[in-house]
Amino acid sequence: MRARETGVAEVPLAWVGPVKVGDETSGMGGWAWEGAVPLATYETPLWASVERGAHATARAGGLRCVVQDDRMARSVMVEAPDAAGAADAARWLEAHQDELRAVAEGTSRHAKLLAVRTETAGRLLYARIECATGEASGHNMVTRAADAVLGWFLERRPECRYGSISGNWCCDKKVSAVNGLMGRGKRVTAEAVLERRLVERYLHTTPEKIERLCWGKNWVGSALAGSVRSANAHAANMLLAFYLATGQDAANIVEGSQCFTLAETTEDGGLRFSCTLPSLVMGTVGNGKGLPGVEAALKRLDCAREGVEDGANARQLARLCAATVLCGELSLLAAEANPGELMAAHLRMERSQE
Amino acid sequence: MRARETGVAEVPLAWVGPVKVGDETSGMGGWAWEGAVPLATYETPLWASVERGAHATARAGGLRCVVQDDRMARSVMVEAPDAAGAADAARWLEAHQDELRAVAEGTSRHAKLLAVRTETAGRLLYARIECATGEASGHNMVTRAADAVLGWFLERRPECRYGSISGNWCCDKKVSAVNGLMGRGKRVTAEAVLERRLVERYLHTTPEKIERLCWGKNWVGSALAGSVRSANAHAANMLLAFYLATGQDAANIVEGSQCFTLAETTEDGGLRFSCTLPSLVMGTVGNGKGLPGVEAALKRLDCAREGVEDGANARQLARLCAATVLCGELSLLAAEANPGELMAAHLRMERSQE
Amino acid sequence: MRARETGVAEVPLAWVGPVKVGDETSGMGGWAWEGAVPLATYETPLWASVERGAHATARAGGLRCVVQDDRMARSVMVEAPDAAGAADAARWLEAHQDELRAVAEGTSRHAKLLAVRTETAGRLLYARIECATGEASGHNMVTRAADAVLGWFLERRPECRYGSISGNWCCDKKVSAVNGLMGRGKRVTAEAVLERRLVERYLHTTPEKIERLCWGKNWVGSALAGSVRSANAHAANMLLAFYLATGQDAANIVEGSQCFTLAETTEDGGLRFSCTLPSLVMGTVGNGKGLPGVEAALKRLDCAREGVEDGANARQLARLCAATVLCGELSLLAAEANPGELMAAHLRMERSQE
Amino acid sequence: MRARETGVAEVPLAWVGPVKVGDETSGMGGWAWEGAVPLATYETPLWASVERGAHATARAGGLRCVVQDDRMARSVMVEAPDAAGAADAARWLEAHQDELRAVAEGTSRHAKLLAVRTETAGRLLYARIECATGEASGHNMVTRAADAVLGWFLERRPECRYGSISGNWCCDKKVSAVNGLMGRGKRVTAEAVLERRLVERYLHTTPEKIERLCWGKNWVGSALAGSVRSANAHAANMLLAFYLATGQDAANIVEGSQCFTLAETTEDGGLRFSCTLPSLVMGTVGNGKGLPGVEAALKRLDCAREGVEDGANARQLARLCAATVLCGELSLLAAEANPGELMAAHLRMERSQE
Repeated sequence: MRARETGVAEVPLAWVGPVKVGDETSGMGGWAWEGAVPLATYETPLWASVERGAHATARAGGLRCVVQDDRMARSVMVEAPDAAGAADAARWLEAHQDELRAVAEGTSRHAKLLAVRTETAGRLLYARIECATGEASGHNMVTRAADAVLGWFLERRPECRYGSISGNWCCDKKVSAVNGLMGRGKRVTAEAVLERRLVERYLHTTPEKIERLCWGKNWVGSALAGSVRSANAHAANMLLAFYLATGQDAANIVEGSQCFTLAETTEDGGLRFSCTLPSLVMGTVGNGKGLPGVEAALKRLDCAREGVEDGANARQLARLCAATVLCGELSLLAAEANPGELMAAHLRMERSQE
Repeated sequence: MRARETGVAEVPLAWVGPVKVGDETSGMGGWAWEGAVPLATYETPLWASVERGAHATARAGGLRCVVQDDRMARSVMVEAPDAAGAADAARWLEAHQDELRAVAEGTSRHAKLLAVRTETAGRLLYARIECATGEASGHNMVTRAADAVLGWFLERRPECRYGSISGNWCCDKKVSAVNGLMGRGKRVTAEAVLERRLVERYLHTTPEKIERLCWGKNWVGSALAGSVRSANAHAANMLLAFYLATGQDAANIVEGSQCFTLAETTEDGGLRFSCTLPSLVMGTVGNGKGLPGVEAALKRLDCAREGVEDGANARQLARLCAATVLCGELSLLAAEANPGELMAAHLRMERSQE
Repeated sequence: MRARETGVAEVPLAWVGPVKVGDETSGMGGWAWEGAVPLATYETPLWASVERGAHATARAGGLRCVVQDDRMARSVMVEAPDAAGAADAARWLEAHQDELRAVAEGTSRHAKLLAVRTETAGRLLYARIECATGEASGHNMVTRAADAVLGWFLERRPECRYGSISGNWCCDKKVSAVNGLMGRGKRVTAEAVLERRLVERYLHTTPEKIERLCWGKNWVGSALAGSVRSANAHAANMLLAFYLATGQDAANIVEGSQCFTLAETTEDGGLRFSCTLPSLVMGTVGNGKGLPGVEAALKRLDCAREGVEDGANARQLARLCAATVLCGELSLLAAEANPGELMAAHLRMERSQE
Repeated sequence: MRARETGVAEVPLAWVGPVKVGDETSGMGGWAWEGAVPLATYETPLWASVERGAHATARAGGLRCVVQDDRMARSVMVEAPDAAGAADAARWLEAHQDELRAVAEGTSRHAKLLAVRTETAGRLLYARIECATGEASGHNMVTRAADAVLGWFLERRPECRYGSISGNWCCDKKVSAVNGLMGRGKRVTAEAVLERRLVERYLHTTPEKIERLCWGKNWVGSALAGSVRSANAHAANMLLAFYLATGQDAANIVEGSQCFTLAETTEDGGLRFSCTLPSLVMGTVGNGKGLPGVEAALKRLDCAREGVEDGANARQLARLCAATVLCGELSLLAAEANPGELMAAHLRMERSQE
């Protein structure tokens, strides 16, 4: 194979903030942090938008970000001789979780098997191997584990045949419902509560308007569009920019984009605002993480701590990512709550050739 | 506002190929092209994977890529006084398409109104403004058109109130069914037919195995996962890399990833393989396109032709993108058709820290 | 074939109400009506639930029910020689709508062609024939039209081959997004506005509580469940019972169940409540409608008027059906808004063997 | 409340078959049975269609029907003070499964708690209580269990507030992905293998044609339609008719309709055909089951055995239901595989008023 011509794509990056995130003891924990976050995107008006949300939430005392789950999944596919055989093999697999654990965990010192789940369609059997993968996003680690499990299984159930190392019930970088329901990546919720005067001063609107817009747009509009487990304004924009700046595989914004944004007026007239992100696939080691710019960014974000629990840096990174998503969601909804503001902002910030 | 600290994220890029695409007279047309395509990604094993698919399809005479549709959409949201009022306003809008055309097209010399569609939920009214947007992906152009339409409407129907310039029925950068069904971005199908010996020689498998895997994984597995209008192996990977290398807003890979990959054994034992991509949002002008690397890439891809029909360069770019997706889909399915090959390839190509 | 043993299933039926529906000039119109509606179901506690909603809305002056669209669809499937051929045939079909109209309408004096839409996946072409079908729900009528269109097409495009008279892009009696987005059946919205005191007196709760529950359950809960274009409490229950009592093909409650229920507190503290039902497939002629009980029911519902526009009786029936759905939705949400009420009601109304 | 006018809806019923189902030791078991099944529907052409499939499969030695899972679910909704509180309460619930078991199982001697699962969106917490419910479909039994769990929880976590006894994450009688992925109702797969000559003789087509149609229509067509976890021709028709004839709550055909139908040509040229039905909600006791016709039907189907394991009759009934679905699926696909056959059959069998 000939040598390929290589280089780099230079994606504009800015440090935006400060974003303020509190210390967290709920869920899987995390440490307090305040500072700018790096966003790499060709759509540079995003910077100002996130910044506005960061300012408003920082004035409100910052964000709480809770990590509820952390796992990576790969589903293998197997052909059983018939549907009854597939059902039987599925039961057999579920009854051998201990052996499967030994096989899966033998492939990496970081992998911890969390579950093996199965589903069948006719004689096709899908087995979803779910592992904790430490600091790695875990695509390769869980694929190795799945490969080992698959080989071990096929030896013991020779009536079954190899179908695929990946059977799309995983489900990687594709629109689906399974990841949110069963868990894949970090499940993170970011939340902020803003006093009314902060909403008025920094976001130029009211809690009631944001709440109303959030229901009408994020929930009703998305449902009309035929969305699946997705109710947000533009989470994908922040995810892309944060992922590129921190060396993540940004194709995972597909499932990452399935974010639930909720807004409600509090009893004292303020705004409670949250973004629930069930599938944030990200890590602090692996492809891309060793590049100089990425490495420096992870350090600056305080996500390269030594001596912490395996995976704690990656989960902290996911917390900062969720916080960034919230800042962008809040800012865009505020802009859209006011007739004409969004267009004016766009016209002001760019000289589009369109 | 303080000055932001800015820089660039350097995403590894390689020119991969040659990809060979034929001259096209079906659909919206396009010109023949053969050469490498640029792919920017932190997941560099993707390069070899796409390259293998490019070689195999080039030996088979190349790919046919047909563009069937090209539009951008923005849906506004309006609050009518009641449900009957929303229904009435929807009918009124649909009955005034000519006036709406004048209003929408008055906002840009590139915008051509293709349709205004409506849907209501209770007293909420959503109107989807769909435009041809020439060489631009068209987010801003169609938002300006929607803004004008919305203002014009609210003046004439004062009983209705502004809801949002974007009501998520658009549906931008979010998982949904509406884009594929109604059209948003370029609708492109890439197809290749490979003789059996090419499949065996370059892909080390058989048409039957690829066909079988494609059904079991891309269609059955995806359906089990609760996918919506999505049946492919990893289209998002190629989209991300192609988008980053050509200055596109890569957050649009969310809807772009909803790709249908089909494989079938031909009567003479060869392989027919296609990828249908209903929502490729991309352009050759706008944010990011003026960066030196991007500009050079578009030129090298022959997507910066002078004197062609407005939008023809962007559609040609979408054809090359679809071709690239097909190369990657074909290569991964071939790898997964052979037990152990995918893992071996990964282990060979990278020294993962995971 | 031997004679089959036949009989009837006797499903308990009650006339419940009175439901009060106003005269309607918006949308496709309809006449005022007040009276009981027939509900046939084994789940007889439903009767009291709907009745409560009927009483509350009748006291509030009744319901408005608007029919926005009325069509039936059947999609044929065709195999083109290749993907470009499928794209070409799709364009050709869309360019021959006038001829297609003549062909389709030649199969029935009731059928009016409204649209032929197409979509392709690789070389598979799907064409969706959409017709107004008068008083019939129209399954058979539109299938005959599709059959004629398909034959006519295959004669003129002999390179294409018959795939199926029904290609599931229709999409009949199956969960999908296409019916709501493109239209299939009657699109009906029912709405009621209740003064606060009526909510308190008849529903034992407040507008605020119903609004809050409606968002949390119907919208957020459904989204978490991975619903598609569906946000309601139990629309399927009312649909089943109304369909069985009026001779409808109740398998169409599958798509019918995709109902959007919205609740909001009005400025003066009352409750605005609506159910939007995009796919009510129903008619007043065809299978089942000639049975004595059914015929009497349709007459009693004033949906067997002579001399009205073709389809007006069926649309009126759909209005009453939507009104019934609203009554049941309102009543259940009110019950669920109060801790313990639902269980108490169930325990009171039935002596379950469970 | 006034006395309601009551009666019955008489739905035409026929005993169709014989359907032949084998003894089963895989999965949750079941006994052999051969005989006619009762189908109640206004769409009487269905009878002949199912009958044809029954004949063909009986000649092929009958069907295998495997029950893989059997549970009923109800999800409660709770409002925590904030998102971190919701996450904390979710963990707390998952950590108290033993206590929850005692609480849930204290409400019925038939209920066995299988799992309590949780998901949060912002500060909203959804807990899905899943129980085995013996011979009952279990709606009420699991609601009672959920009610008890909810009360017990709210006492111990007084910072949380009642949201709803049903939060739609259950998800009853509504289109969703959760039921198939997590389990709700009986998960049943029916399968038959037919020699080539039987396909030709009884179905007038070939295995290859059925396989090809099944992919193009049930899988590709459904995906294009935006289906979710659904790939079949008309499972809802058979479900409705079987449910009505056996006293089931037929509104559950909404989720029941999410059936996966697979067809493949075997190595010796025959046809392997399966229907996987993940959510068959049905029982042999409860509302409707005591009606004379229903009781007799259950007895005749041998689903009222004394002395069997709790739930075994209901699971056997689900096996017969799945077998019936398969017969109808096979017959319709065979008809649609031949140009014109479906229309001819319809025209022959009915004198439609349409």
